[in-house]
Amino acid sequence: MRNIKITIEYDGTNYSGWQIQRNTDQTIQQILQDVLTEINKKKVKLIGAGRTDAGVHALGQVANFILHTSIPVNKIPVAVNRLLPADIVCKNAVEVDMSFHARYDAIGKHYRYRILNQVLPSAFSYRYAYHYIHKLDIQKINEAARHLIGRHDFSSFQASGSSVDDSVRTISQLEVKQEGNEVWIDVWGDGFLYKMVRIIAGTLIEVGSNKIEANRIPEIIRARNRKEAGFTAPANGLTLVDVYY
Amino acid sequence: MRNIKITIEYDGTNYSGWQIQRNTDQTIQQILQDVLTEINKKKVKLIGAGRTDAGVHALGQVANFILHTSIPVNKIPVAVNRLLPADIVCKNAVEVDMSFHARYDAIGKHYRYRILNQVLPSAFSYRYAYHYIHKLDIQKINEAARHLIGRHDFSSFQASGSSVDDSVRTISQLEVKQEGNEVWIDVWGDGFLYKMVRIIAGTLIEVGSNKIEANRIPEIIRARNRKEAGFTAPANGLTLVDVYY
Repeated sequence: MRNIKITIEYDGTNYSGWQIQRNTDQTIQQILQDVLTEINKKKVKLIGAGRTDAGVHALGQVANFILHTSIPVNKIPVAVNRLLPADIVCKNAVEVDMSFHARYDAIGKHYRYRILNQVLPSAFSYRYAYHYIHKLDIQKINEAARHLIGRHDFSSFQASGSSVDDSVRTISQLEVKQEGNEVWIDVWGDGFLYKMVRIIAGTLIEVGSNKIEANRIPEIIRARNRKEAGFTAPANGLTLVDVYY
Repeated sequence: MRNIKITIEYDGTNYSGWQIQRNTDQTIQQILQDVLTEINKKKVKLIGAGRTDAGVHALGQVANFILHTSIPVNKIPVAVNRLLPADIVCKNAVEVDMSFHARYDAIGKHYRYRILNQVLPSAFSYRYAYHYIHKLDIQKINEAARHLIGRHDFSSFQASGSSVDDSVRTISQLEVKQEGNEVWIDVWGDGFLYKMVRIIAGTLIEVGSNKIEANRIPEIIRARNRKEAGFTAPANGLTLVDVYY
């Protein structure tokens, strides 16, 4: 029995998110778990670092499971990728201590929100970047972003209806930059509330298009009211880049 | 009545190629023609610069059609894109002389063949790049590529079964380079035979993996025999980049 940590990349466009659901087989966790069960020859219970919503992508999702067969760990990616659909890829597998838990042991995550910021849509990036036509003011977005960095109660940036006891989180870094025709919002934190990154992205987009003033952000945070923040930016622009342990 | 030249971008993954077919509606030409007919309020006959096969992409396909309504030409892309699926985009529309014909007037084309050249597959590029695991020798490929440049009878690089009277074509430029984890084969010519770019790509891949010697290319050309060249590289790696007039 070995505890295996895998790193996974996926294009979430065609899936109902990471988390196994009763009413659909089209979840990343379900598909991966089924493929790993085939290799393990015994039912696998796959533990993910965190959920990603329908349409959200990952470059470095992390999960772990208990392996019972004698397959060399470095052969796992090739064996798994042979059975996976092309839009889900196992990038890496390593043996870890039996105590390792992909969710409980995660100390931080890096998300990227991509915005295609030009008049024309793109046939090649529509799956991975949110198309926003009006020119964004990167300087204003960066001004606003500075106020979000730090330890705050992020209730205003949490999807309404979600019930977490503690909505205090720490954003350690938040970078906004022009990347070709896209604007990338990169955010690092110790954990994120439900839809928090997409609400941050939506709010920053509204700042960048002069609908919200950059210096209103502290007030929005203090309000602890979802209605004070901007819109929830669409899922397709979001990618889970990395999970830290 | 105005003659309109449009430039189109598409992700060909979900389509049966450019050319209208009897047994499917899933062709780029059909979908575009239907959308243009809606704007034109009269049946449009769309003339493309050339066919692309099922799964092949375009960054700059060109087509023309006769417009009967008074819509300003610069409004056409927005109007058309509102009706098109997200994987087909009209990038540009200009009025041209009534004599302009997208196919007959084309004097050259630029194609790109993208190869993801690493052990791991990619969930994000599998639609646009052919995954080839074995490390390619770019220098050898460039040696071979030099022999293909110029005016030749390219019968050896034409899909068997196709019947063109004249298989002499001119390749004016052929560049092979490493682009991150990909190898890009860029080829410019006055015209291309059926599957010619994909057979050139397949042959160069075989050169780059030491299955065909670079200096055998002149002999392969002289043979005028499809069997002498390499395999036909898959459609997904191919993109029509530009058409010249």
